Amino acid sequence: MRIAGIDPGLNATGYGIVDVDGDQCLHVAHGVVRTRSADSLARRLVLIRDGLRKVFAQWSPEVGAVEASFVGSNARSALALGHARAAAILALADSALEVHEYAPAVIKNQVGGYGQSDKAQIAKMVAMELGLAEQPSPSDAADALAVAITHWAHTRLEGRI
Amino acid sequence: MRIAGIDPGLNATGYGIVDVDGDQCLHVAHGVVRTRSADSLARRLVLIRDGLRKVFAQWSPEVGAVEASFVGSNARSALALGHARAAAILALADSALEVHEYAPAVIKNQVGGYGQSDKAQIAKMVAMELGLAEQPSPSDAADALAVAITHWAHTRLEGRI
Repeated sequence: MRIAGIDPGLNATGYGIVDVDGDQCLHVAHGVVRTRSADSLARRLVLIRDGLRKVFAQWSPEVGAVEASFVGSNARSALALGHARAAAILALADSALEVHEYAPAVIKNQVGGYGQSDKAQIAKMVAMELGLAEQPSPSDAADALAVAITHWAHTRLEGRI
Repeated sequence: MRIAGIDPGLNATGYGIVDVDGDQCLHVAHGVVRTRSADSLARRLVLIRDGLRKVFAQWSPEVGAVEASFVGSNARSALALGHARAAAILALADSALEVHEYAPAVIKNQVGGYGQSDKAQIAKMVAMELGLAEQPSPSDAADALAVAITHWAHTRLEGRI
């Protein structure tokens, strides 16, 4: 099974592709779709959606996993994140990929080993988990790989139950 | 010029189409694209986007106007609204329609005559402005017509300046 993990953001949307091979999770690709704040919101959403569509067309994942939003106290940030998430989710839907959502705390718990992991810790643990010589960067791409790894771990757990 | 006004919402996204004929604004159509909360977020976003695409294909507007978000204190509502807005904006972009945004206060001020107009007042004023025998319903569709009327009024004002 090939999993696409997505960490949506209006400035930078990270993606990470992994392959599940038995009990192993193997790195395939990772990267970021960026937009410029000078562009219109419509343009930025099209760039995110179409950029991810291209990634999915290139790597042919079979399922998608997206970081569920941490809804903090900042309504303005939540609105911007909602815009980016919708563009990412529509890209997955357009590519006929089922969308699974994982809360940030679940992802951190899965990949970092505990709930309080910071960005650097996530990248380090993702590199260890996937046997990468270098930590994946930028952090949005590392976070996206973490989402993909979380989906793999949950699927494996479900299979055992 | 034919204008499509949109009032985005995850449960109900209103649309209103008006024609500008000289100094007059004429009603063409209005309605709502609904989604069910039982459906997945991906499904709901696809329904909103594809529903609006169909409306645009049917009525061939030349420009789009969307209610800009009132960012209140509720981050959860802002996130949901962000999702719906992105689906609507992508539908406009996919239909090659330029997107104009108007703040709720600007729309209320334009259509209601003052900033504090409530839903019923908006529907009443939209009916008067467009010479409709009945008030447009539901309120999401009336709000969408109000957005379209606001764009017409602003375009007319710009033309005079």
